[in-house]
Amino acid sequence: MSAINLNEKLTLFQETWTPKIIGELNGQQVKLAKLKGEFVWHQHENEDELFYVVKGQLIIELRDQTITLKEGEMYIVPRGVEHKPIAHEEVHVMLFEPASTAHTGDIEHELTKDELDWI
Amino acid sequence: MSAINLNEKLTLFQETWTPKIIGELNGQQVKLAKLKGEFVWHQHENEDELFYVVKGQLIIELRDQTITLKEGEMYIVPRGVEHKPIAHEEVHVMLFEPASTAHTGDIEHELTKDELDWI
Repeated sequence: MSAINLNEKLTLFQETWTPKIIGELNGQQVKLAKLKGEFVWHQHENEDELFYVVKGQLIIELRDQTITLKEGEMYIVPRGVEHKPIAHEEVHVMLFEPASTAHTGDIEHELTKDELDWI
Repeated sequence: MSAINLNEKLTLFQETWTPKIIGELNGQQVKLAKLKGEFVWHQHENEDELFYVVKGQLIIELRDQTITLKEGEMYIVPRGVEHKPIAHEEVHVMLFEPASTAHTGDIEHELTKDELDWI
C-alpha cells in the first residue's frame, strides 16, 4: 500500500451521495463522498458515524439541533440518532464508520446504494 | 456534542509524541498528535493504525519500504507490521485506531504514555 492522497482520490469520481471506500481498518471503513443538496432523514441503529469536512460546508440536521461543519471540522453522529446531511454547495467529506454501515441507514430510498466501490 | 475543529484542538497542547483523544466511535478513538524527531520501532499486534497528516510531512519507516505522507495524505499501518514514525520538522497528525491501542505498541519506552488525555 502507498500513501492515500484525499484530493487525488476526490478527482476520481463526480457523483454525489455515493461514498467511495479508500481504506479499511479494524472492521471500519474510510470513505470519501461528494454531497450536494439534501439527503434523507435516517439513522444507523448499531453504528456511530464520523463526518470530516475536507472541503466546503456541511450542515447536519439533528432532531434537536443543527450542526454546521466547515473545512477541517468533524462530528460524530452516535448510533440511533436521526440525522439529515445538507450541502447548499458541493461539499467533500471523509467518513469513518463500520464496514457494515448502510449510508441511508434504516430506510430504503432512491439514493440508497447497495454496494460501494473502492477507489 | 458540537463540531470538533482540528486546528482549534491543536492549539490546546504543545507536547510531542503525546496523542490526545478528540473522539470515540465504535470502539475506535480519534486522536491528534504533534510529532517531531524519531519515534521508536514498534508494532501493534491486534490493531491497524491510520495516520492522517493535518500539517507538515511525516515519514513512516517500514522494514521493507519508506512511506512519505504530506498534508492531506493518509496511510494505514496493518496490525503486526513494525513501523517507525519520523518527523524532521514538527508534523500534526490525526490517528484512528482502536481504543485499546498503546502508542508505543509492544515495547515499553521512555516515550510510552500509559493514559491519554481527552481534549
